[in-house]
Amino acid sequence: MVQNNKPILGITMGDPASIGPEILVKAFNLKEVHDICNPIAVGDSRVIQKSLDDLGVNKKINRVNNVDDAIFEFNTLNIYDLKLIDADTLEVGKIYAEAGDAAFRSVKTVIELAQSGVIDATVTGPINKESINLAGHKYSGHTEIYAHYTNTKKYGMLLVDDNLRVIHVSTHVSLREACDLVKKERILDTIELIVDACNNLGIENPKIGVAGINPHASDGGLFGKEEEEEILPAVIEANKRGYIVEGPVPADTLFTKAVGGLYDGCIAMYHDQGHIPFKLVGFNWDTKAGKMKSVKGVNITLGLPIIRTSVDHGTAMEIAGKGIASPDALVMAINYAAKLSLTKREVK
Amino acid sequence: MVQNNKPILGITMGDPASIGPEILVKAFNLKEVHDICNPIAVGDSRVIQKSLDDLGVNKKINRVNNVDDAIFEFNTLNIYDLKLIDADTLEVGKIYAEAGDAAFRSVKTVIELAQSGVIDATVTGPINKESINLAGHKYSGHTEIYAHYTNTKKYGMLLVDDNLRVIHVSTHVSLREACDLVKKERILDTIELIVDACNNLGIENPKIGVAGINPHASDGGLFGKEEEEEILPAVIEANKRGYIVEGPVPADTLFTKAVGGLYDGCIAMYHDQGHIPFKLVGFNWDTKAGKMKSVKGVNITLGLPIIRTSVDHGTAMEIAGKGIASPDALVMAINYAAKLSLTKREVK
Repeated sequence: MVQNNKPILGITMGDPASIGPEILVKAFNLKEVHDICNPIAVGDSRVIQKSLDDLGVNKKINRVNNVDDAIFEFNTLNIYDLKLIDADTLEVGKIYAEAGDAAFRSVKTVIELAQSGVIDATVTGPINKESINLAGHKYSGHTEIYAHYTNTKKYGMLLVDDNLRVIHVSTHVSLREACDLVKKERILDTIELIVDACNNLGIENPKIGVAGINPHASDGGLFGKEEEEEILPAVIEANKRGYIVEGPVPADTLFTKAVGGLYDGCIAMYHDQGHIPFKLVGFNWDTKAGKMKSVKGVNITLGLPIIRTSVDHGTAMEIAGKGIASPDALVMAINYAAKLSLTKREVK
Repeated sequence: MVQNNKPILGITMGDPASIGPEILVKAFNLKEVHDICNPIAVGDSRVIQKSLDDLGVNKKINRVNNVDDAIFEFNTLNIYDLKLIDADTLEVGKIYAEAGDAAFRSVKTVIELAQSGVIDATVTGPINKESINLAGHKYSGHTEIYAHYTNTKKYGMLLVDDNLRVIHVSTHVSLREACDLVKKERILDTIELIVDACNNLGIENPKIGVAGINPHASDGGLFGKEEEEEILPAVIEANKRGYIVEGPVPADTLFTKAVGGLYDGCIAMYHDQGHIPFKLVGFNWDTKAGKMKSVKGVNITLGLPIIRTSVDHGTAMEIAGKGIASPDALVMAINYAAKLSLTKREVK
């Protein structure tokens, strides 16, 4: 039962064989997380108990099958327990069907909880495309699962890391096909998605920068025609509709300017154009050791009837079970889910 | 006359109406620059004197028409004086033919000085394509001027900023044309250029990462065929030739890994793929003010018979004459020119 007015977040454990359970336990062990939300883990209580034991974190597990039974206090870890996989036989670091099935069913359940209104928002841990496919669930990732079960046709993915907010005109298509998808209407739809998302994040009248697709945004038509024929007309139309939009901006300056605070949101024309700057900003390296220290960066699915935020990193199987994974990205995802939940309540 | 064994660098003032003269004077006023080289400015002594006066820098100008007349000491600013433009009528911040002509002739002269062997290397300040074209010099930038006057057909541009060293398979062509240029032989040539460049920078047996062109490096052929048909065969052949090369690496992780120290050099498949991470790493922002604090990043032309390094930033006309331009990139370019000069002497 809810003992306070903070948003209730359903947070999936991700792939049980991955760093998912570890980062969940680490995040749930931070006071700052409990300060902003009422968190409920969604997955398997035995897997979470194992992570608690491995990390030496002292928390009492409260297994619930009804959100009303949750006890929201720091020393209690509430888990919506689906009895998915045996922790004793769990093969940590391995890509296999049973783990993929457990990951998938956690996601499906958290969607249902949000749809029924018993939680305010959903946050997802990392899953592995190969594992869920081995289990017979033919999705390329979370976004497609969410789109399917919420019956959503028009959606987008917003990448967020501090000042940098990026949305793509296209993602998982070849670069040649991405060139074909640079069309005025598609760009306009993407601009409207990011303006709406910025509003929900508390940024009113956001300033949006639209990237060119060609080098130097074609340098006045010298290298390519997409800027003149599609991107500029979309920017002009967006301005007519009252949005504050600039572009086409050469892509090699747009993202660094956004990091510098000159744009609230960026429209990337293709997958790598937005993901290269995003991962460069989010990944924090120990350059001497040549190892990653931590990773930030959140992924927010736009256009869904429910709220979904996620870590933007993968399952990191190679370091699963070692106790060294950073919960930073998950904590950021929880923060954004809490923030979006409050906006949604205000709008209601 | 040379009073020590440090390399002699010819350093152009860039466009006289730009930040070029200012950053030159600031760099020449650093002890660290004189510690590693014997610098000679190439341009107009009146323009340089104006910058000295504007910045309140106390240095004696030594106008030379023969490198042997240079006096290499901290308080003397040697300038190979071409009497190009009158400082009193100079229109700071303006793009115009007279300034473009002065910029162009400084570059042409520094090339000749290096070809004649009286200087060890050349370093170039920023020029403006429009200005030099207004003056009737039909080049798209420094690289083309150097290629023309040194009669070089096969050249490349290496971007360097600390751990990040990037070379491109193609640059100033549309993204669609860049897709067509992803060919095994071209990638191999580019790999050989960067390995050679790394060697010259003192990195033996460099580890090179080759980017994919499609998202997730095509995810096993799901999005595009270039990885399988062109990039992987180039990597295999490069390994056969004894180079340490990995790829295709998804572009959104390659560059952050390189920043983290996992690769000595990166092969980018197209202009923005390499320039986005490079400018993100090199540009340093005051995010509160939304203004750039400083800019790093050096551009080294590979394949020339003479050494050329350059700032990678532009003429920044909007801040010309204000005294706020950062010399960091020019100082880095001077450092790399000095380093390459010493390697060249050793090889001889």
